[in-house]
Amino acid sequence: MKQGLLLIISGPSGAGKGTIYNEVLNRMPSVKKSVSVTTRAPRPHEKEGVHYYFKTLEEYQHMIAAGEFLETASVYSNYYGTPKKHVFDLIEKGDDVMFEIDIHGARQIKKRYPRAVSIFVMTPTFEILEQRLRGRGTETEDSIARRLGSARNELSQYELFDYIVFNEDLEKSVESVIDIIKAEKCKMKTNEQRVKALLGN
Amino acid sequence: MKQGLLLIISGPSGAGKGTIYNEVLNRMPSVKKSVSVTTRAPRPHEKEGVHYYFKTLEEYQHMIAAGEFLETASVYSNYYGTPKKHVFDLIEKGDDVMFEIDIHGARQIKKRYPRAVSIFVMTPTFEILEQRLRGRGTETEDSIARRLGSARNELSQYELFDYIVFNEDLEKSVESVIDIIKAEKCKMKTNEQRVKALLGN
Repeated sequence: MKQGLLLIISGPSGAGKGTIYNEVLNRMPSVKKSVSVTTRAPRPHEKEGVHYYFKTLEEYQHMIAAGEFLETASVYSNYYGTPKKHVFDLIEKGDDVMFEIDIHGARQIKKRYPRAVSIFVMTPTFEILEQRLRGRGTETEDSIARRLGSARNELSQYELFDYIVFNEDLEKSVESVIDIIKAEKCKMKTNEQRVKALLGN
Repeated sequence: MKQGLLLIISGPSGAGKGTIYNEVLNRMPSVKKSVSVTTRAPRPHEKEGVHYYFKTLEEYQHMIAAGEFLETASVYSNYYGTPKKHVFDLIEKGDDVMFEIDIHGARQIKKRYPRAVSIFVMTPTFEILEQRLRGRGTETEDSIARRLGSARNELSQYELFDYIVFNEDLEKSVESVIDIIKAEKCKMKTNEQRVKALLGN
């Protein structure tokens, strides 16, 4: 039985990782989205186990203590985390699981699961990133400066990532991520069990 | 300036590496064939610098002594080898260079250039390899047995290879090798200079 891949896609705000992530999920049915656990209240359209697993703060803290998360973070006093069991069950079944996640989450996952394949999405230059942030028309000068500072900080942690996609053209970037996923399936490490079986070991 | 890739494609006789190699070269003009040096006499259609660099035995032995080869081997009392300078000039220019080579050559290249990307082409099973060898209609029972023994020996050295392509369907196998090449171009290590330049380091 061939294990699936755990894929991480990360990168600065404005580089286009979310669009690429959704497009890759659309085109590769074998790649699944991971479902997070959260302590925030469900919104009207959100379904348990589809959009999130909803937990109370006490339940969540109990899960942290029990080491049940691949990564966990708090945003505006709510917790969000990725349950190990959910992800590892999918991988064991042979599904690939992909995460769109910030660099702190990427670091936690790489630490707990070093075989995770990490992809950093970046604009070709910081100038283009600035143009894109400005083009949103919703960011203040302060927030643009802050996001550019974060982008630089994230890129300086490039060694955390196995791959980098310079998102110049969306279509090409989506294809690059798909090429990466297909190539990872040909990795010798991914196929070691099959090779050993062929050799009778 | 982005360095090109050094790609190695290897695998047992009968697995289809030669066909895949030629098809990938046809489809990816950015991928170049390496030109070998040989001591064997040129055949009528063979051109210096296109098919081979032709050298005398003395010249060849001098090149060995001077450490000018990425790999060298003798076949039926002739020498064949890959000149480092030729290959590194292409890589420095940003071209990718691909080799179809036996496992001894693959090992020499990996040793002298650890960044080489090595791909092993194998049939899905040894039974299929045997069928394909038998299907040639030109192999004796002895040579089939010898080739199967070699195939097993080569596969047992699987750790030398970064990737494995199980050649069940030629078209899919060619696409897999192309995916691998494209993914390798997104490797963080391949893009480290560009990232450092962006960060101003």
